Amino acid sequence: MEHEPNDPGLADLVHRLRRFADERDWQRFHTPKNLAMALAGEVGELLAELQWLTPEESAQVMADPEHGARVRAEIGDVMIYLARLSDILGIDPLAAATDKLTEAAHRYPVERSYGSAVKAPSADRTG
Amino acid sequence: MEHEPNDPGLADLVHRLRRFADERDWQRFHTPKNLAMALAGEVGELLAELQWLTPEESAQVMADPEHGARVRAEIGDVMIYLARLSDILGIDPLAAATDKLTEAAHRYPVERSYGSAVKAPSADRTG
Amino acid sequence: MEHEPNDPGLADLVHRLRRFADERDWQRFHTPKNLAMALAGEVGELLAELQWLTPEESAQVMADPEHGARVRAEIGDVMIYLARLSDILGIDPLAAATDKLTEAAHRYPVERSYGSAVKAPSADRTG
Amino acid sequence: MEHEPNDPGLADLVHRLRRFADERDWQRFHTPKNLAMALAGEVGELLAELQWLTPEESAQVMADPEHGARVRAEIGDVMIYLARLSDILGIDPLAAATDKLTEAAHRYPVERSYGSAVKAPSADRTG
Repeated sequence: MEHEPNDPGLADLVHRLRRFADERDWQRFHTPKNLAMALAGEVGELLAELQWLTPEESAQVMADPEHGARVRAEIGDVMIYLARLSDILGIDPLAAATDKLTEAAHRYPVERSYGSAVKAPSADRTG
Repeated sequence: MEHEPNDPGLADLVHRLRRFADERDWQRFHTPKNLAMALAGEVGELLAELQWLTPEESAQVMADPEHGARVRAEIGDVMIYLARLSDILGIDPLAAATDKLTEAAHRYPVERSYGSAVKAPSADRTG
Repeated sequence: MEHEPNDPGLADLVHRLRRFADERDWQRFHTPKNLAMALAGEVGELLAELQWLTPEESAQVMADPEHGARVRAEIGDVMIYLARLSDILGIDPLAAATDKLTEAAHRYPVERSYGSAVKAPSADRTG
Repeated sequence: MEHEPNDPGLADLVHRLRRFADERDWQRFHTPKNLAMALAGEVGELLAELQWLTPEESAQVMADPEHGARVRAEIGDVMIYLARLSDILGIDPLAAATDKLTEAAHRYPVERSYGSAVKAPSADRTG
């Protein structure tokens, strides 16, 4: 079972989030549906920071202190909701990620994927 | 700077993702814009697993082996892209999350937030 | 081809958006990638307006003048980007929607779908 | 009030969607929360079709029959859920869009916005 992430840094964040919600009696708002919507909202805010940049500009965004700080803040918000949602569901997101990556390594062996148009680490989308 | 996350579990995932992309010569597809779009795509797939459930059903989704496995897979995909995007940008998402949470604790002190309608740990959205 | 939507209201919006972008020399920012990201960002803002509500509260959201106005504004933004993106791609979104719905009626015949758990008009997601 | 869109093409889609849901007794799944999540899920699928393309490739995506058909299908799905959600909320999305655009024209007068970095038709994001 994955109720407690093995990983110390993630476990620390998960505990802080539990305390934060408990102190404010906010647990009842934290259903998986609500948290998934909040996660999508924060990802939207992250996209908004990058949407008008060229790919090259996006690669340099952290060089601008103000813009970089906003991007970092949105990454933080996305991580918050991913950690909280995963905890409520009893999932360790790092373990889940590693399992998906192992799967992807089989689905996209190097000899067949090198430099190719099929670029997604996740093969869910067969387009 | 945050080029290497302090956290061992996250650092391990970040390294695996670098190797995965390097082996396949996929780095050129991994601009921040593309990775942010991929992240949004995976969050969309996660929402799709929960969208027709009631809040109560969503709280029980992991009890169904098939549905739970799909949810876990999507959580894994979201973590993959968040980790990869953060790495490309040179951001430690756990550190960014902890900083946002500290900020939120000031913005939503317990005495004023207990059980209230203002529930978001992130106060970006004042709407 | 679908360069001009048949539909007068949508065609009017499409023309206004073309004028708006041309007047400001913003066309070069309006690549399909950028517009798709902007669309996702606005959908995120819409979700943010509903994320902490219960399903019942969400059904009453328009009864609150302030909250209802914000929801309407986000719907407007989503429609703006969907119309602009579709126009740039040469797609009539209403025609595309009608075609999908016709497809869905075949994939979900009433006799097999009545009241069932499979609720999505779109059968893309076989989960 | 905006319970019936003025626009014939959109009104036709709205009516078809009402019939589709009524025939299958699916109305109870169509709360604004659920429909907003479904909308986000479909936008995620649309982003997935564009995420690995360069901006130039994305501008040519409709030239490929297979890829173009998938993009058109996703645009259709997004329009379906936007129309259904708007109808449930009693909002005319075309009217809401036109109102936002009028607002934006004031917020971004041509003389101050020409070719500038501030490119969003929607000024919600001042970040």
